[in-house]
Amino acid sequence: MRIALLATDGGEKFARLDGPLAHGLDGSAGGPWIDLRETGESWMWAEADLRCPVRPTKIVCIGRNYAAHARELGHEVPSEPLIFLKPPSALLAPAGTVVLPPESKRVEHEAELVVVMGRRASRVSRQDALAHVFGYSGACDVTARDLQKKDVQFTRAKGFDTFCPIGPWIETELDPAAQRVMCRVGGATRQDGSTTDMIFDVPELVSYVSRMMTLLPGDVILTGTPEGVGPLVANDEVEVEVSGVGVLRLRVAT
Amino acid sequence: MRIALLATDGGEKFARLDGPLAHGLDGSAGGPWIDLRETGESWMWAEADLRCPVRPTKIVCIGRNYAAHARELGHEVPSEPLIFLKPPSALLAPAGTVVLPPESKRVEHEAELVVVMGRRASRVSRQDALAHVFGYSGACDVTARDLQKKDVQFTRAKGFDTFCPIGPWIETELDPAAQRVMCRVGGATRQDGSTTDMIFDVPELVSYVSRMMTLLPGDVILTGTPEGVGPLVANDEVEVEVSGVGVLRLRVAT
Repeated sequence: MRIALLATDGGEKFARLDGPLAHGLDGSAGGPWIDLRETGESWMWAEADLRCPVRPTKIVCIGRNYAAHARELGHEVPSEPLIFLKPPSALLAPAGTVVLPPESKRVEHEAELVVVMGRRASRVSRQDALAHVFGYSGACDVTARDLQKKDVQFTRAKGFDTFCPIGPWIETELDPAAQRVMCRVGGATRQDGSTTDMIFDVPELVSYVSRMMTLLPGDVILTGTPEGVGPLVANDEVEVEVSGVGVLRLRVAT
Repeated sequence: MRIALLATDGGEKFARLDGPLAHGLDGSAGGPWIDLRETGESWMWAEADLRCPVRPTKIVCIGRNYAAHARELGHEVPSEPLIFLKPPSALLAPAGTVVLPPESKRVEHEAELVVVMGRRASRVSRQDALAHVFGYSGACDVTARDLQKKDVQFTRAKGFDTFCPIGPWIETELDPAAQRVMCRVGGATRQDGSTTDMIFDVPELVSYVSRMMTLLPGDVILTGTPEGVGPLVANDEVEVEVSGVGVLRLRVAT
């Protein structure tokens, strides 16, 4: 199932997308990850209607989860997942504009597979992990590389407003173990990796994160980026694509 | 004004505390930081009724903001605020129990003054910063010191469930520039610092954080801890006290 958040004349509504048709979902319980009942309302949707499809209480991110990317930044391959947080204020909708902050001279793209939690998860095993997942999406873990190096802590470098575009929607039936994760800038391919190359796979990540913090329905995990990260400049047109999900289109401005 | 979240027979309610009396607040707008209208309902409250008085979309924390504490951990005094995030899943109510996770052999207390935002703040100046603040509270920035050193990123070490007790309530009329920040364990004083010794004061912190991420009403900033941090072990009874606010009592368990 493909689940989107759509702008409508009656406000933002979660919907199941079926080709050109949107079937409204009853979001009264707090989001589709909690309640997937359909309202019976259907309408034609357009790409411009897409809004950020997640409303997480926390955005957990994994660093250096692809060996080739860890090496391109000059790091060792980690023995445990490296985790950090982005604030929800950084979320950005599909077709949104990544704003380059004046504090940085080097902002880079990091295309990633996103895990959207469906059930509360506290210290779940690797075996039980996927049963707690609602679906998958794409993200750009936008990073001010100069501030990341300067600050040591990643919070500022990765926490600016607009630095967490997610979308274009959530795909609930996806095998996270074998998807391509791509980033194109101005039509040119910058990143084209495969989730088969993750150091820690999705079940391991969900289990690991849940051992330190309780994951709630709607929370998201950004699973790390493959090699090929590079700079973004004003007027760039960016496409993040996770195979089996779709294309998240972005613009860049100062 | 002293604003608390209280458990009542009719669910949790925000209230203004006036000695032994609680005056109910209309929380329909999303919290007292948005709407302070009183409902007209009043009742006698008890310490056992206190719940965590904040519901932030993000918990921003400042590291090494007191020179003596930076030195006790062997660090230089920073030239800019060091910021990191705790997940909201780490929040703990007054009289709550800090749970020591099996992953750590050394969990420490860090008593801190908490800033609670009242108005949306994006790139506000130092001069305008305090006009965006709703009030102040106390917190223990519980930290797994061994994991903090091992991971480099602070997220795991400071992000476990129960690692962010905040309370006992919010005090709206407080001068953040001249308060004592204390921690007692089993009645013995471990920390007794003054916010006059902050490297970056509250207006500077609000302004700095707002330059990277938009602060929303109800968001909180933990402003760093004075010297004297030390270990917590099972059955410890902990008191965090910010002068002018009150005492946040906690227990510790495995």
